[in-house]
This record gives sequence, structure tokens and C-alpha cells, in this order.
Amino acid sequence: MKSKLKSRVQAQLQQLLGDRVSTNQEVLDRHGEAFSLYERHPPDFVVFPKSEEEIVSIVELCSHNQIPIIPFGAGTSIGGHILALHGGICIDVTLMNEIIEVNYEDMYVTVQPGVTRNQLDERLEGSDFFFPIGPAVNATIGGMASTRASGTNAVRYGTMRENVLDMVAILPNGEKIRTGSKAKKSSTGYDLTRLFVGSEGTLGVITELTLKLYCRPERIYSARCSFPSIEAAVNTTIKIIQTGVPVCKIELVDGQVIEAINAYSGLSNPAVPTLFFEFHGTEIELDDHIRKTRKHAEEQGGHGFLMEKEESKQKKLWQARRDLAPSVMARFPGSTLMTTDVCVPISRLAECIVETEKDFKEAGLFPGIHGHVGDGNFHLAIPLYGTETEDYKMAKVLNKKLIKRGLAMGGTSSGEHGIGIEKLSYMKEEHGSSLEVMRAIKAAIDPENIMNPGKLIPDK
Amino acid sequence: MKSKLKSRVQAQLQQLLGDRVSTNQEVLDRHGEAFSLYERHPPDFVVFPKSEEEIVSIVELCSHNQIPIIPFGAGTSIGGHILALHGGICIDVTLMNEIIEVNYEDMYVTVQPGVTRNQLDERLEGSDFFFPIGPAVNATIGGMASTRASGTNAVRYGTMRENVLDMVAILPNGEKIRTGSKAKKSSTGYDLTRLFVGSEGTLGVITELTLKLYCRPERIYSARCSFPSIEAAVNTTIKIIQTGVPVCKIELVDGQVIEAINAYSGLSNPAVPTLFFEFHGTEIELDDHIRKTRKHAEEQGGHGFLMEKEESKQKKLWQARRDLAPSVMARFPGSTLMTTDVCVPISRLAECIVETEKDFKEAGLFPGIHGHVGDGNFHLAIPLYGTETEDYKMAKVLNKKLIKRGLAMGGTSSGEHGIGIEKLSYMKEEHGSSLEVMRAIKAAIDPENIMNPGKLIPDK
Repeated sequence: MKSKLKSRVQAQLQQLLGDRVSTNQEVLDRHGEAFSLYERHPPDFVVFPKSEEEIVSIVELCSHNQIPIIPFGAGTSIGGHILALHGGICIDVTLMNEIIEVNYEDMYVTVQPGVTRNQLDERLEGSDFFFPIGPAVNATIGGMASTRASGTNAVRYGTMRENVLDMVAILPNGEKIRTGSKAKKSSTGYDLTRLFVGSEGTLGVITELTLKLYCRPERIYSARCSFPSIEAAVNTTIKIIQTGVPVCKIELVDGQVIEAINAYSGLSNPAVPTLFFEFHGTEIELDDHIRKTRKHAEEQGGHGFLMEKEESKQKKLWQARRDLAPSVMARFPGSTLMTTDVCVPISRLAECIVETEKDFKEAGLFPGIHGHVGDGNFHLAIPLYGTETEDYKMAKVLNKKLIKRGLAMGGTSSGEHGIGIEKLSYMKEEHGSSLEVMRAIKAAIDPENIMNPGKLIPDK
Repeated sequence: MKSKLKSRVQAQLQQLLGDRVSTNQEVLDRHGEAFSLYERHPPDFVVFPKSEEEIVSIVELCSHNQIPIIPFGAGTSIGGHILALHGGICIDVTLMNEIIEVNYEDMYVTVQPGVTRNQLDERLEGSDFFFPIGPAVNATIGGMASTRASGTNAVRYGTMRENVLDMVAILPNGEKIRTGSKAKKSSTGYDLTRLFVGSEGTLGVITELTLKLYCRPERIYSARCSFPSIEAAVNTTIKIIQTGVPVCKIELVDGQVIEAINAYSGLSNPAVPTLFFEFHGTEIELDDHIRKTRKHAEEQGGHGFLMEKEESKQKKLWQARRDLAPSVMARFPGSTLMTTDVCVPISRLAECIVETEKDFKEAGLFPGIHGHVGDGNFHLAIPLYGTETEDYKMAKVLNKKLIKRGLAMGGTSSGEHGIGIEKLSYMKEEHGSSLEVMRAIKAAIDPENIMNPGKLIPDK
């Protein structure tokens, strides 16, 4: 931003927000840094609004001066979504963290965008209801909606796509819209709620979200099973899904990763492809779900099936999955993880994982394969030492190969991490002419391209 | 259409489609008639393409000459969606009725838009899988997607919103797009699938749809229960939903309607508000679901709880619900039904129904109340004798009152019937500034406004 404009904008922001405007370099840097290997792109200002009205004023100021706006929640996205590529104003919504309404009768909760996943969990603790969607980090609800977040429970409860009932957003022209209603369904007009979910801050600033709540299950059980191969684990998954066992989580962790976790967490799980399960239901239902799951697993050569009913033992069982990232980093001290994910039709999943693993291992890289296999979605967590290394270059090449493989299998270049800047270059290949429709929608809603420019839609 | 243009277009269409172009008045009339009390608006031509390529050519012809296009499936919509308000070409897709791929492993089916609900059911018969979404009539899948159809199973399986995985559509410029992929989830770009679902033919012509399949439940049970009041029935519904009983259908039929059904079908059900239930699951699960449902019902004064496990007996139990429309028409011989629906947060449902019933009864009208109460969605089926009567005028006034009541309760002006032309005048009140966003999207994708003009989005 030119210095004359910058001082004028700064004065206006300060008048509006007092000391909730930052030009402190540390603050700027922290807001321009992705959870990954990207170059830092700090914004010109970070602002901390406390109300919708303040956001409207900030957006109007930006609109008037064609200043980029980057909405910012917890900053935990890994696709570079929050990098201020063209400078501008980062709107940090963490002070807008009020849980506005908890409505158990209609089973929804309305929150401000800065409410975090954990905060919402705590608020619902002790009630009969919960919100099932959550990534591995403590993201904000605004960020989760913006990136169409998902996580381990998606196989049963869907993603943010299925679980946002309504939103309020401020458009780039400062206009406030409500995207839906509090009704469970509607057939009146274009589905703007689903348009804004996953739009990565490119269409407006979300100021309020209404989420579906679910009944807490009477019982939760967990299980773990070792497999002779990735194929056996994936085939088990297919059988479980195909026979309608309403499993809540099915997570695959590859043998090499299990080994790293064992070392890090002092565990001694067999270092082979492993599935972790969670089941929600009544006692009688869960006994049935476990029995069927075990049968499917053992038919595929699964062994060491371990089932836990006690909460503390379940926690211990899941520790392996939870410790995944730190375990891989501990195995490669000083490394940063390059993460990627694709999602394919489940019938192609085993093939996709096996070929990918082979590629990385042959290149001497640690692929760190794990994922939400019930959805056909898997991740790589590749430990790398900076972006100047041969390993980094090779990992980029193999990631490209992985994405092209996923697309060729009828899948998508990202199941849940999103585009940001990471997968911009695959948008054309994945979406073809649809990309032009997305571009037209973006131009219709944000003609000056001030909302998170350079993300989601590649420049022409 | 001017006669010179018309003959030129006719020649071009005939060259393209041979005898699959109709100007026969009966055919035109049948395609310009809604399942309701609207004035007839026949198109200039009805065409019957057999392939995507033919649709592209038709759309290009229309685009070049700015001729309105009305996509047409079974013509069963009740909101006037298919009326050719400005003439033009009706694209009847019923010859495009191929089931392209049934993929049990990945649990999806890909169909052409003219495939009907019953045709799909028949194809899946005998398999372990089914498609749960269906309105009361034998609509086409293309039409169901276009109107975001729903039906009795939505409380458990969602609506078309949740169940279309991917689509192919021809844009108004003749460009072909694919809206998604075959992966179960994705976080790459704007959700065009959800944008096209419910767009009522205003954005493009759908030529292919991929739908999610579900495992057939091991067992299906049905039940029926009588209640002392609408409130008692709705409170029972709320309790069932709130305690997580995964009921598949909960249908309310009002006492007056039960009376009409009894007379029509020779039944003797108590003529009081009645809930009909269907449950999907294993034997052991269903016993539990039935037990809980019955307990909730009886706590609200429910009586005469009848449960059926045998298929033929379940069919008989549901006959009452199925015979609803003919029963009401038989009670008022020669009448046409005016239908309407709203959807509200379930906590407001009893109040909404009771007030609405009172309004209609006080005006001497038969409201014909029934609905998918598990979703907070209910219908009116009002027998009327033409549009020239005082009753018709009164029904219009009370329908307006109902919609305003629904909106004031945080609901939507239609849960599943859609806008068409029926509820155009409420779009502004329901969506506020969001309507301008819809208008901008429409203009971006269909700048010449040739796709089903005059529907969904009110003229300025």
C-alpha cells in the first residue's frame, strides 16, 4: 500500500477501532504466516473488530479504496488461505467470539465467527447435544465454514457443507446478507449458504453462523485393528460402509507412521497399516456395529482387534492418531511438515494410496500416510527441511503426481484442506469450464476483487 | 415469438431433431400447464432431445436468438415452474432416460435427467441399495434436483441438497460444465452442485446427475398413533428428534383430513391428528426405536399406537397417507387442490399449524393440513372451484398470511415446493439483500435471461 494511502487508512481505522488496529511487525508477521512451508506475506494492518457494524465500516473503507481484505480466524489453515499476497487489511475475528444462541429445542447454535471449536465444545458440555465437525486443530467456526472443514467424524455426520444452517455475511460492497433461515430445509432460491461455505473468504466476511446440533450418543466405543496391507484395510472400510454400519470414524494410519508414533509416545502397536474406529449409538446397537466391523476386518486378514468401552481407555487408543504430527516431526527433528490431501471414490482408494506410497518411498521420502478412509480421503504429512532442498522439489513433483492421479480416478484435488494458494494450479484441470462459472460468480459478487484476492480462483 | 423467427427456428429445430419437434397444440398445452390453478402458458415449441449434443445445439440456437428455454421433466411441479411465461422452447428431457452407471462399490448412480423416481427404484430393486429421496409423484430426477425436492424420508436422509453428488449441465452459452466430482467430499472451489440444485432451470439445462445410494435397511417397521391435538403430535415429534431416535418418516395428518380419507378408502381411523411413522434399521434397533417413540407419544396423550412389521400391513397403514390428495378431492367433487407449504423451526411448528388451521376454518375453507413434521415442514391442500370464486381469493389471502407467519417464525416460504411463480412475491421479504446476490449470480451465468425467465427471481 502506498504510504500516503496507508497513513490515511490508518487514521480512519484508528478512529473506528481505537487501539484495535495493529501495525506491529510481529502481529503482521503472525497473520501472514501459514501453517506450512509458504513464504510469509504480512498484511499492512491487522484489525480486531468487536461487532458486525465495525466490520461493515472496515469493508466499506476497503471497498472505497480498493484495499484487499483477508478474513482471519485462528490462522490454522494449511493451504496458505490467509497470506496477504497483495497486502491489505487482515480482519482478525477472534474478538467476535460470542455464542449468541444455543437452541436445544430446534437443535442449533448461533455463533460469531471467532468462536473456536473447543469453546463450542465446552459450552455444550453437560448438555444432550454436540457439534460433530472438527479438524485436528482448534480452528474458529468462521474459518471452518470458509474452508468447508471436515475431519474424522465426517463419515457419519458430513462436513461443514451439511452442517451450517444459516450465515450472516458482509459483502464487499458493505451490504449485509443472511444466506438462509432457521428452517431445516428450504426450496426458495439459490443455496447461498452452500455457496459461502468453502468460499475461503473470497465473497464476503462472515459475521454470524448457525450450526446444526446433534444428540449425544448414549454410548461411544472405540476400536483398533491391524492389517496385512493397505488394500486389506481399505477393503474392510469399503465393506463397512457398503453394509451400512453407521461408523462414526474410520481412520487409517500407515505402518511407517505407527512406528514413528510408537517411538514418540512409548507405544508398541504393530507397525502395520492400522484402522482406528469410533462408534456412536446405544449399547445394543454398538455391540452389533462392533461385531460386524470385526467380522469384515477379520475376513480381510485383520488381526489384534482391540475394542474399548471405557472413556480413558478409548482416549489411550486414540492417542496414536492424535500424536501423529508431533511423532513424525520427532522422527525427523527440525523438520516442517508438508501436508496434502486428495479424496477419491472409495473403490480407487487402495490403488491411490499404494501407488503414492511407492512413489514417495522410492524417492527416499517419508510420506506419512493417514486419513479419513471412510470418505475416500487421505493425507500425506511429509517432513521436509525448508524449501531449498532437493527433497522439497521432489515432494512437490510427487504431490503433483498424486493430485493428477486423484483427479484421473474421478476424485478431487483436496478433500478438506482447500485451495488457498496451494492447489490453485489444479483448479483448471479439476473443474474445466466450471472454473469460469466460479470466476463469473466471484466477479458478480466482488467486482473489485478485494475479498482475499489471489485465493481459490487462479488469476487468468 | 414473431412468425418469421418462428419458422426459421422451426426449420432449424427440425433439421436437428427430425420429428422430435412439436407444435401440436395439445402437446404445447400439456407442457404449459401446471399441476395447480395457474393459467396455461404454452411454449412455442416442445423438443425431445435424445442426447447432450442435441441439447447443446438447442441451447446455442436459443442463445443466438434470445429465445427462452424451459427445461421440462415430468411436469409435476406445483409452483408453476414449467409455465412458458414468455413462450420459447420447452426442452422435454423424457427421452433422455438412461441409467448410465450403477456403482455399488462407490454407492452412487449416474442417470440422465429424464429418469424417473420409479424407474430408478425398479432398477435398484433386488440390490442392497436404494435412493431415499422422492416426492409424492413420479417426478424425474432432473426435475427433483432442479426444485430441491424432498419428501417423507428427508427427516433421516436429507433432501436433494444432500444427495446429489455431481451434475453435468449445459450453460446458456452452450458451454458444458461438470459441477463436482465422484468423491464423497471436496473443498475445492465454490459448491456449484448445490448452486444448481434448486435453481429451477434458471441457470442451465441439466444433462446428467450422480446421486448417492444408501444401504437398504435390514428391517422396515411402520407405526401410527392418534393424538388429542396438533400440539401433542408436534411435541411428540420434537421429543423423538431431540432424543436422537433416527426415525425415517414422521408424517402428520390432521383430523379433518383423516375423516376424508376414511370416507374415500373405507377406513375407520380415529378422525384426530395422527402421526405416521417409518423406521429403518436392524430388528434390535427398531424394537428400541419403536419403544422410545411409543413412550414419547403416550407421554403426550397419544393413543391407539399401532405398529406393523409385515410389509403388506405396513402398506395398508400408509394407505391413508398415500390416499390423501384423492380423498380430499373426493370429499369436494370437481375441485382442484391449491397446495402450499412452509417450513419453520420445529419449536414453532405447532403454533404455526394451529393458527393456520384456525384461519382457514373460520373462513369456511378446508385447509387439508398434513406434512413432514420431523423437518418442521407442513402442507395445505385446499380444495377450490376455479380461480373466479370468493373462496379462491380468500385462500390466496390466507396463504399470504401463512407465509408471513412462517417467515416471522424464522422459517422459509417453501420447504419443498419451491418458488416457480407461486412464491415469487415473497422472495424479497424472505431473502432481503440476498435476493440481489441471487440476481447477480443469475445475470453472471445467464446474462440474456433465456433460462426459464420469470421464475425463481422476481423481475425488478
